Amino acid sequence: MAARNISIGIVGGTGYTGVELLRLLAQHPNAELRVITSRTEAGTPVADMFPNLRGRVALRFTEPSATTLAGCDVVFFATPNGVAMGGARALLDAGVRVIDIAADFRIRDVAVWEKWYGMKHACPELLAEAVYGLPEVNRERIRGARLVANPGCYPTSVQLGFLPLLEAGVVDLDHLIADAKSGVSGAGRRAEVHTLLAEASDNFKAYGVLGHRHYPEIVQGLQQIAGVPVRTVFVPHLVPMIRGIHATLYARLTGPADLQALFEKRYGGEAFVDVMPAGSHPDTRSVRGANFCRIAVHQPQGGDIAVVLCVIDNLVKGAAGQAVQNMNIMFGLPETTGLGQIALLP
Amino acid sequence: MAARNISIGIVGGTGYTGVELLRLLAQHPNAELRVITSRTEAGTPVADMFPNLRGRVALRFTEPSATTLAGCDVVFFATPNGVAMGGARALLDAGVRVIDIAADFRIRDVAVWEKWYGMKHACPELLAEAVYGLPEVNRERIRGARLVANPGCYPTSVQLGFLPLLEAGVVDLDHLIADAKSGVSGAGRRAEVHTLLAEASDNFKAYGVLGHRHYPEIVQGLQQIAGVPVRTVFVPHLVPMIRGIHATLYARLTGPADLQALFEKRYGGEAFVDVMPAGSHPDTRSVRGANFCRIAVHQPQGGDIAVVLCVIDNLVKGAAGQAVQNMNIMFGLPETTGLGQIALLP
Amino acid sequence: MAARNISIGIVGGTGYTGVELLRLLAQHPNAELRVITSRTEAGTPVADMFPNLRGRVALRFTEPSATTLAGCDVVFFATPNGVAMGGARALLDAGVRVIDIAADFRIRDVAVWEKWYGMKHACPELLAEAVYGLPEVNRERIRGARLVANPGCYPTSVQLGFLPLLEAGVVDLDHLIADAKSGVSGAGRRAEVHTLLAEASDNFKAYGVLGHRHYPEIVQGLQQIAGVPVRTVFVPHLVPMIRGIHATLYARLTGPADLQALFEKRYGGEAFVDVMPAGSHPDTRSVRGANFCRIAVHQPQGGDIAVVLCVIDNLVKGAAGQAVQNMNIMFGLPETTGLGQIALLP
Amino acid sequence: MAARNISIGIVGGTGYTGVELLRLLAQHPNAELRVITSRTEAGTPVADMFPNLRGRVALRFTEPSATTLAGCDVVFFATPNGVAMGGARALLDAGVRVIDIAADFRIRDVAVWEKWYGMKHACPELLAEAVYGLPEVNRERIRGARLVANPGCYPTSVQLGFLPLLEAGVVDLDHLIADAKSGVSGAGRRAEVHTLLAEASDNFKAYGVLGHRHYPEIVQGLQQIAGVPVRTVFVPHLVPMIRGIHATLYARLTGPADLQALFEKRYGGEAFVDVMPAGSHPDTRSVRGANFCRIAVHQPQGGDIAVVLCVIDNLVKGAAGQAVQNMNIMFGLPETTGLGQIALLP
Repeated sequence: MAARNISIGIVGGTGYTGVELLRLLAQHPNAELRVITSRTEAGTPVADMFPNLRGRVALRFTEPSATTLAGCDVVFFATPNGVAMGGARALLDAGVRVIDIAADFRIRDVAVWEKWYGMKHACPELLAEAVYGLPEVNRERIRGARLVANPGCYPTSVQLGFLPLLEAGVVDLDHLIADAKSGVSGAGRRAEVHTLLAEASDNFKAYGVLGHRHYPEIVQGLQQIAGVPVRTVFVPHLVPMIRGIHATLYARLTGPADLQALFEKRYGGEAFVDVMPAGSHPDTRSVRGANFCRIAVHQPQGGDIAVVLCVIDNLVKGAAGQAVQNMNIMFGLPETTGLGQIALLP
Repeated sequence: MAARNISIGIVGGTGYTGVELLRLLAQHPNAELRVITSRTEAGTPVADMFPNLRGRVALRFTEPSATTLAGCDVVFFATPNGVAMGGARALLDAGVRVIDIAADFRIRDVAVWEKWYGMKHACPELLAEAVYGLPEVNRERIRGARLVANPGCYPTSVQLGFLPLLEAGVVDLDHLIADAKSGVSGAGRRAEVHTLLAEASDNFKAYGVLGHRHYPEIVQGLQQIAGVPVRTVFVPHLVPMIRGIHATLYARLTGPADLQALFEKRYGGEAFVDVMPAGSHPDTRSVRGANFCRIAVHQPQGGDIAVVLCVIDNLVKGAAGQAVQNMNIMFGLPETTGLGQIALLP
Repeated sequence: MAARNISIGIVGGTGYTGVELLRLLAQHPNAELRVITSRTEAGTPVADMFPNLRGRVALRFTEPSATTLAGCDVVFFATPNGVAMGGARALLDAGVRVIDIAADFRIRDVAVWEKWYGMKHACPELLAEAVYGLPEVNRERIRGARLVANPGCYPTSVQLGFLPLLEAGVVDLDHLIADAKSGVSGAGRRAEVHTLLAEASDNFKAYGVLGHRHYPEIVQGLQQIAGVPVRTVFVPHLVPMIRGIHATLYARLTGPADLQALFEKRYGGEAFVDVMPAGSHPDTRSVRGANFCRIAVHQPQGGDIAVVLCVIDNLVKGAAGQAVQNMNIMFGLPETTGLGQIALLP
Repeated sequence: MAARNISIGIVGGTGYTGVELLRLLAQHPNAELRVITSRTEAGTPVADMFPNLRGRVALRFTEPSATTLAGCDVVFFATPNGVAMGGARALLDAGVRVIDIAADFRIRDVAVWEKWYGMKHACPELLAEAVYGLPEVNRERIRGARLVANPGCYPTSVQLGFLPLLEAGVVDLDHLIADAKSGVSGAGRRAEVHTLLAEASDNFKAYGVLGHRHYPEIVQGLQQIAGVPVRTVFVPHLVPMIRGIHATLYARLTGPADLQALFEKRYGGEAFVDVMPAGSHPDTRSVRGANFCRIAVHQPQGGDIAVVLCVIDNLVKGAAGQAVQNMNIMFGLPETTGLGQIALLP
């Protein structure tokens, strides 16, 4: 292929977003993975930590180095929240484009961000410039962005599911309900008791009903789409599975609408959003390992409540895959480049 | 113990409800298990099919025999839908009390039943007599009942969760939403592709959005509680776990209410309904193998939507355990007799 | 019942062995749970940590107190390794009997213990007195013991499986092979990456092939049974399930033997060891939550290798249940008292 | 790419091997999928049955047609046992090459085959011509083969694990032990009770200890490798996971050997066999969805028993992936063409 390679750095990369990003980039025809940093694992071959990469990724983790990263075309932050905001400025100044897969630049209102993330924002001046990386909404702005805030996993699924309804203005915006279910990889690769297999397996529960960090991101996104204030209840649940988000969305219709046609029309041109036939129930495994969002829309018993079923792989369309999709857009590549993986079923 | 034993027959019993009923009755101090029938397994020791019962249940499956069953004090039907309605009349005439764990007598309107269950009802005249066996609603009527229709698993969780809100009259009855999640044992022990481990594991999906047999039972139950028509959307989901139902219920409050106090007061005297402290998130494993319903109620962001989280074990409080609870009530035993199992955690 | 209650203290109790012990003791007719200690959780109601115990265990965790514990009839240590050896002496001196569910007193040779457990033993003088609490081997010694070392989970399954072969002297003692598989609860309730659901689910692996702490305990136990030195290879594996151990044992027969008869005869009088019919394959769920060991023995293709399949619940017969069984023996109760739970299936 | 496309037919294809073959071929640069047959599903779009293929595989299942299949370069049989032997002859006569992913041509001795598979062989005359498609053993013969018998999943893992030991002649050939564990997808997509999630999840068991169809295939393969008779015990187990086989192999060393060097040398040139560093424990997820076999070899406690740990994905290197690898060899393509998928982790 004639397109020149994109030189890539990854900050962080010892978590699930990191290994997934590596899996995708190692199969991307225009990606040249130059450096991956980790303070704690410096010196360790990446494939020692993630044996699926043996024979495919030869890099070792290295100490973070401004110089090395500054030589890249793009740097991904696959770090805990709070890291990218400390490093983005210098990289941008060096002409490097930045994609933050964490949450540092997702919320435009710094006060809201600081309240929900419990820390002071290190470079609020970049919030206005950062582009929220949901291509189905912001494609044109992503194209020219220096700094992309890759959306959260829950917000990706909730926004893509509500989007056609909100754009069409056919639902009550004061009582949106997002009942979302996620596999445990959404909690990351941190050792915590509640995500141990012995705790989370053969079990199901809601969590964070009184407040989850993805709530303000969801509200901000839905408001941008609707153009007016919206009110939503967001209830996340933990599913005993590794990957996958299933958002079940409820909205009260304010008038008649052909929901199936509405969704098909809105997403007709989107490569990564698949509106399923009427009557379908998408399952999360149908997108496992793939950069897809599959959606079905229902109107049970012909009543006035629309039910949207929306699935993504939280680590792909909900994180690393969407980040690569954003990279493709930013560098003028076909949006699907390197993202042709087919979901693993069964 | 002075109480005389209850002589018990079970029709069916090769499914999950059957083995769970056997597990509970084998530990019940007043239960004398006399006969268990199965045409297909006649002659097979029960413990050959269910090795957890080795050394505890010595019975063999036998051909159904009207005579033998007629000698019991009570007969449980742990059969597919459509069997109990063929056998109940003769047993009642012989003075035997009947508890149907299937759906034959749950719906009062025979036309509704026949539409949803796709068959002609064999003895509609018993529908008026049958008592819907949800003790927290119908305890007094169950006490004197000859024929109890044991509730479905989803309907048990949805009704117990909405009950205090509906009785108190504090919610919009036209837009109730029941987003329910069930482990796969709810689908029974039938060999079907979609509940194979390779299909249902590491996966999550909704199903039956356009119509599920538990929908009319839920509507009927909620209407009985509310005393007026209600409209609800019911979306069941399949969780990759064995046991457990988690109902996440949404209702729009029509005025101010102290939800926590409301629930605590309503269920204060119930042995098997546990209202958790404010801010709680019950998990299904906290009731695994136990005849409990645990409930938490939330009002996210102080908005006008109440969120109720309600968990049961679908095979216990959602089936066999509730059946034993009903038997205890019918025979004048303390309601908790033989139901002291503590949930298995982890 | 006439038997007086046994006053019980538990040291530790925030882990899986602890909650399982509480579940069993709360259902034990002669157990009076007096105190449960935890430095980190002092003040917390036990049922806040383990909601399955809500309504059944009213105790709070308390700071460890020598005085309170000294007033008990028996104290269980459900602690990490290295704690019981610091507290046992004082309790014994106060006339309290001690059951250590951890490993402090399992190995008779202090040098071997210190090598495998990586710490200095705090009271080696008690090692000679401690009785290894495998009732099927040491019942009479347990009866009079002041200090019982409750066996490890793997060692329980491996010893019970090999026992009849070794006692009968029919196998090559130099090439025993124990291929053992365990659910992840065996690793405890500690937050560790490798037992996260996202790591351990939908996955299978061996671990500790070059050395596992249960190896010397297994060798010691098999040698005591055989009366001569034995050599064994022990390969543990991690199964993506919560509870259960399946030991697949291989031994070369040195002559003809009726293996089925051998096993049935040896375990004919044992309440908690179930020799299954010839040709059986016990599954771990058949003992889930129950204090049972189920065994099948095979001789594939009529060759000279005996294959023993042996299952236990690692938290019950492999830990807390066996501890209660030992308590029953020590206090002269029928061995099965309070251990009548039937395995949860499905 | 200059290489001409290979025109491909698939007979069967409604099972797990079929969907996996479709996933791989849809990503293969030289594969032109022309026809896929299924009597029961004729007319159904493949992607309706397997939604992961939506947008990627446009074919519908069709009635089997000799004419259509005869126009292909190669036909894969992804059918139940007993189908390929009825159709292979005509295809070979038409100049089509055949890869049978089922068992019809795996066993050279027709009497042995008929005994284990319980049916009469329809074309025993092809058994001599059929090449056993284990590339690491038979690469040169596969290159020129018209008919390839793709190996079974267990046999692939057991043979690749024992191979270096047997070729080097360093182990006792009379007491080989293969303790193998498989995910449930190995049982196929047939509706059966024992592989329901509610039966197989949170559970572990051995099965087929007295005889499994892969046993004669394993013995035949090991004998071909060793050049002399061998005796082995093969004990398969069912793991509560979807994909993956872990073979734990035990062999008695007859003399000193540098096992690590032996394995590394033997597999140094193999693209799909990865010998891990000394002391490793490969996990099945490290090959999930990838055409890899990862192996580690141990000699515990410096004793005389070699322990080999060998993992594959039963649907990839154990079935569809190996079939594509064989196709690549047969058609002169680089062996890795279209098989660059990286395992999905987590």
